[in-house]
Amino acid sequence: MFTNCSSSTTSLQLRVGPTLLNHRSGIINLNRHNSVFFPGRSVRQLSLRTTASRSGHILSIRSSSDHAAMVFDEMAVALNIMDEIRVETSRMEKSISAVPGLAIILFGDSKSSKAYEVPGLMVGIKTLVVRLAEDSSEEEVLKYVSNFNDDPCVHGILVQSPLPSHMNDKNILNAVSVEKDVDGFHPLNIGLLAMRGREPFCVPRIPKGCIELLRWYNFEIKGKRAVVLGRSNTFGMPTALLLQREDATVTIIHSKTKNPEEITRQADIIISAVGQPNMVRGSWIKPGAVVINVGTSVVKDPSASYGFRMVGDICYEEVCKVASAITPDACGPSLLMAKAMLLSNTLTSAKRNHNFM
Amino acid sequence: MFTNCSSSTTSLQLRVGPTLLNHRSGIINLNRHNSVFFPGRSVRQLSLRTTASRSGHILSIRSSSDHAAMVFDEMAVALNIMDEIRVETSRMEKSISAVPGLAIILFGDSKSSKAYEVPGLMVGIKTLVVRLAEDSSEEEVLKYVSNFNDDPCVHGILVQSPLPSHMNDKNILNAVSVEKDVDGFHPLNIGLLAMRGREPFCVPRIPKGCIELLRWYNFEIKGKRAVVLGRSNTFGMPTALLLQREDATVTIIHSKTKNPEEITRQADIIISAVGQPNMVRGSWIKPGAVVINVGTSVVKDPSASYGFRMVGDICYEEVCKVASAITPDACGPSLLMAKAMLLSNTLTSAKRNHNFM
Repeated sequence: MFTNCSSSTTSLQLRVGPTLLNHRSGIINLNRHNSVFFPGRSVRQLSLRTTASRSGHILSIRSSSDHAAMVFDEMAVALNIMDEIRVETSRMEKSISAVPGLAIILFGDSKSSKAYEVPGLMVGIKTLVVRLAEDSSEEEVLKYVSNFNDDPCVHGILVQSPLPSHMNDKNILNAVSVEKDVDGFHPLNIGLLAMRGREPFCVPRIPKGCIELLRWYNFEIKGKRAVVLGRSNTFGMPTALLLQREDATVTIIHSKTKNPEEITRQADIIISAVGQPNMVRGSWIKPGAVVINVGTSVVKDPSASYGFRMVGDICYEEVCKVASAITPDACGPSLLMAKAMLLSNTLTSAKRNHNFM
Repeated sequence: MFTNCSSSTTSLQLRVGPTLLNHRSGIINLNRHNSVFFPGRSVRQLSLRTTASRSGHILSIRSSSDHAAMVFDEMAVALNIMDEIRVETSRMEKSISAVPGLAIILFGDSKSSKAYEVPGLMVGIKTLVVRLAEDSSEEEVLKYVSNFNDDPCVHGILVQSPLPSHMNDKNILNAVSVEKDVDGFHPLNIGLLAMRGREPFCVPRIPKGCIELLRWYNFEIKGKRAVVLGRSNTFGMPTALLLQREDATVTIIHSKTKNPEEITRQADIIISAVGQPNMVRGSWIKPGAVVINVGTSVVKDPSASYGFRMVGDICYEEVCKVASAITPDACGPSLLMAKAMLLSNTLTSAKRNHNFM
């Protein structure tokens, strides 16, 4: 199902302290930047609202249109989390002279190693990127994984996903030490995530990022009705398990669910990752619900710059009028949040390995 | 919460072929017994109904009271499943001269080894029971577990639960080979149960028994709304994961859930294991729902033989008037069904080990 449900949100250019942000939702972190400057006309189109957050310092800036929902800013949250990681790695290095290490295996030339090395550098995590040819053998990858498993300086191992098609992802996923499985996809980590009284070594990154987002904005999860749309191993299922650990009452909606809108209408928290453009309409939402979009799809659009545009599972234009909080239009989880969670998992693994509290 | 909600169901004595059953619900297996005899007065109090089942041979016998729901007979289903296991073990022995082996570790004198050996013998599974003293050391248990892990004649290992209080259940649970974990509680098996496209080596027994019950009576699970009450590692959580694998839309209700009755009222399938006497009332049930009770509690009752009686989570007297099918009053899962599932898991493990299809 695809319905045209594009947003009319204006892109705003905001000068925020020393940093120039070009961002739709406009949530900035006053902890890191002390002055706010709105150039010219834009200031009349904005309304300001402070939101109590974990650190009490997130400011929401909303356009003066009829949008009711507060718009999450994952970028700001991710930067805050990276700041916290930096403080912890610094404390760890000063206390026990140990630096968390992250090993990444990439294939081909498509991904820049800098995209991983720079965030690591920013927070004091040593990142080692191995780049293998697309046609590398599975054995070669397993050999690298085995070496990283044995390397005491490596606390997290990430293998690029999806893997080249000739490789068996189960073999490689199972070969990564559960303690260094910073993707959190090893079945043992998933099992420990599902079990009460047990702790997984690592939690999948995007699900963890969604929970962090709710926590940073002080949205209570305990006792709330939560609906996850999609039941993938990498997102829907672990997100449901995480919400359950936080004492939400969780329902997973999937392709065999009849009348999903009847279930979403009862939910206080909705997280969607199905890749169905604009599936979740305004009429599916209970007024005041918190809505997080994860699934995005590429949709043809001759009027767009490249002949296509990104569309989320959530029909932003409709849902933002009903929800109390929502992720920005047509956005999946930000790459920065995914990296912040990767670095957070690496730090946790290093602290556990060195018994550093 | 405890409400007096006892059933007025009459206990019926039925002569069924060569076997004399004393059973409230009265579902008998016409596959194994060819004649049915109702002595005297009882016949006027019964109505008969055949239910299409997996093998097309289950007959429901209902009293002529105002009870509407068909009453499940786990015993009959368990006997049928054991019959199927016996056929398979016989085929296996004839084909490859291999016999499935089950090792059981018991503590103290409280449990009879015959309770395990006899069902094993009935279906052609060799059962080896080790009885350790209550004050045995954890190391001693781990040594037995390790030996059974290495023994090619042992395909399933069961350690009595709960363990003596001085032992760490995580250490012992984790020590059992995942391939021989016939309890299905190893976190790796739980993780594999949660993941789509992956298969656990074994599935927890009582949850598996509930699904088998639904299957035997041909109740469709796919696309149905299912509610599990309780989120324990041993029952609620794996039952929800199993229902999810069967394409139900599942919600787990737990102690932090607000207004649980609003959720149960939408469910086509309700399975309860919370140990709250009579918690689920008739008003909680959607007409025609299928209701399975797992949780039972001991409740004081001076009028009962021993000064107490068993009460289920489900208020039978009320719910049986609304539901289309229900487990018998005040009954948890039968010991026979739990043993049938244990033997089924042992057979599956042996077939996998011998690559016998």
